[in-house]
Amino acid sequence: MAEHKNQIYDLVIIGAGAAGLAAAIYASRYKINHLVIGQKVGGLAGWAPLIENYPGYQPLPGQELMKRFLEQAKSLGSNILEGEVIEMKKSRNNFLVTIRNQQKIIGRSLIFATGTERQKLNVPGEDEFWGRGVTYCATCDAPLYKGKIVAVVGGGDSALTSALLLTEYAKKVYLIHRRDQFRGQVVWQERAMANSKIEKVLSTNIIEIKGEEMVQQIVLDKPYQGLSSLEVNGLFVEIGSTPSVYLVKNLGVALDEKQYIIVDNNCRTNLSGVFAAGDVTNQTHLKQILTAASQGAVAAYSCYHYLTKK
Amino acid sequence: MAEHKNQIYDLVIIGAGAAGLAAAIYASRYKINHLVIGQKVGGLAGWAPLIENYPGYQPLPGQELMKRFLEQAKSLGSNILEGEVIEMKKSRNNFLVTIRNQQKIIGRSLIFATGTERQKLNVPGEDEFWGRGVTYCATCDAPLYKGKIVAVVGGGDSALTSALLLTEYAKKVYLIHRRDQFRGQVVWQERAMANSKIEKVLSTNIIEIKGEEMVQQIVLDKPYQGLSSLEVNGLFVEIGSTPSVYLVKNLGVALDEKQYIIVDNNCRTNLSGVFAAGDVTNQTHLKQILTAASQGAVAAYSCYHYLTKK
Repeated sequence: MAEHKNQIYDLVIIGAGAAGLAAAIYASRYKINHLVIGQKVGGLAGWAPLIENYPGYQPLPGQELMKRFLEQAKSLGSNILEGEVIEMKKSRNNFLVTIRNQQKIIGRSLIFATGTERQKLNVPGEDEFWGRGVTYCATCDAPLYKGKIVAVVGGGDSALTSALLLTEYAKKVYLIHRRDQFRGQVVWQERAMANSKIEKVLSTNIIEIKGEEMVQQIVLDKPYQGLSSLEVNGLFVEIGSTPSVYLVKNLGVALDEKQYIIVDNNCRTNLSGVFAAGDVTNQTHLKQILTAASQGAVAAYSCYHYLTKK
Repeated sequence: MAEHKNQIYDLVIIGAGAAGLAAAIYASRYKINHLVIGQKVGGLAGWAPLIENYPGYQPLPGQELMKRFLEQAKSLGSNILEGEVIEMKKSRNNFLVTIRNQQKIIGRSLIFATGTERQKLNVPGEDEFWGRGVTYCATCDAPLYKGKIVAVVGGGDSALTSALLLTEYAKKVYLIHRRDQFRGQVVWQERAMANSKIEKVLSTNIIEIKGEEMVQQIVLDKPYQGLSSLEVNGLFVEIGSTPSVYLVKNLGVALDEKQYIIVDNNCRTNLSGVFAAGDVTNQTHLKQILTAASQGAVAAYSCYHYLTKK
């Protein structure tokens, strides 16, 4: 990574998911000298078991689609750095970005595309059994549960699609949701309803995760078919996400009441030279690869105009 | 087309370009019973010689990308009708759509994704020689000019990319622009500058197109290298576009001062049940397949909520 040390870029893009990589693709086309820094290339999209609605593609896993975004960005000349940004500061007219290894990078402008982080249940046993039966990624871990019994908790698209993916491997999938109906797309709901391996447990919360080496039981807040806990080998937590904005707070970037970055239609934040795109912004009510990528393109376009004028 | 006669759809999408087809893909996912009506499947995107910035794809012609959108929409269950809408009326809580063959279709909601139409030079000879040397589509017609001399008029991305595509066939390409510099993406400008087949004619207007069976000459408003006209075999007009909104005016859909449909962030127009997406709206400053498709998805999402509540 030495070649990036103390380098100055016209643009630093924080985040390498759909929004960040689309911003990189467009930045390349505008001939903006830029660096993408991301902890996990592909972002949240990389976790999606199956993408069926990204226009132009037949169904494919999110990881595969994000790999194509990455390859395209690279082939157009984007610099990509896998790393964690730990600090951001304003430095005269520029921005000083510090990576975990203390490496520092200067950006004349910034695009935040840091997305959202998975929400946790915050119940006893969750941290203890993380990676030992508790997981937040069906795409990554579903194949580990061949012939096993698992539970998915959540009511949205990611819970439904994860449950469906798990039926390809597990012998039984409990789908547990605190409300009395799911809120994911109708097409996923219908498919989940029609799948005989999926057993719905509605209006129910998980209050504890138990086991020895691995997860063995999840304790419910009310009995299900007379049982106060269910015997499972794995628990997939799919209950949503929160915006990753701890880095921008120091800079003075304005956030809305839910802590999403406020942007205008051109993806500009309240700070000159600072743009944001994708799930981390307050503009994407429909959180999709397509909408995030579109915002990434718009952010790069706005940045191009900003740099040209500067 | 008989099976569509007097049928009622929950949603009628007018336009089958990037926005309309993306709306159809998402409408299918929301299980909305819908019909797409378009005069030309693929819309303006289908004219693009080469798409290099649609995330996820290596460079491909616009026609090819739009074909994939279409196939995806069809495979997800969209009904697609090639035809021209000649009238739209409000009919109680629904919308009555009349096709050129007098066929009538009822929609409970509408998405306008009619895009923009190519602007014409409006000079003598343009209509006379249309299809006989005057063209608005390099993708379609470039291969007809092998070893010939052609001119492209315009200063934006479509003019630059059309000129570049034409160098693959023609022996010489005049690139004529009324201003003293081009306004397309830097990357296209640089490639055009570096191409020895392209001859730039700046600060110049075409005032007449002459010929016999086919185009032979274009007359300039000021001499170029001592010549008041250039000998060419073809003229590619790439000077922009205007929104296609004549159908919505009768309905009372609000337009901005440039005649684009005014939509909010959720692609809602001023009329309940009427949505709009893509180039025809006032929201897409960056007119791209990606941004149009993203709006199509958002419009379908908003429509889904509208129909669910209705």
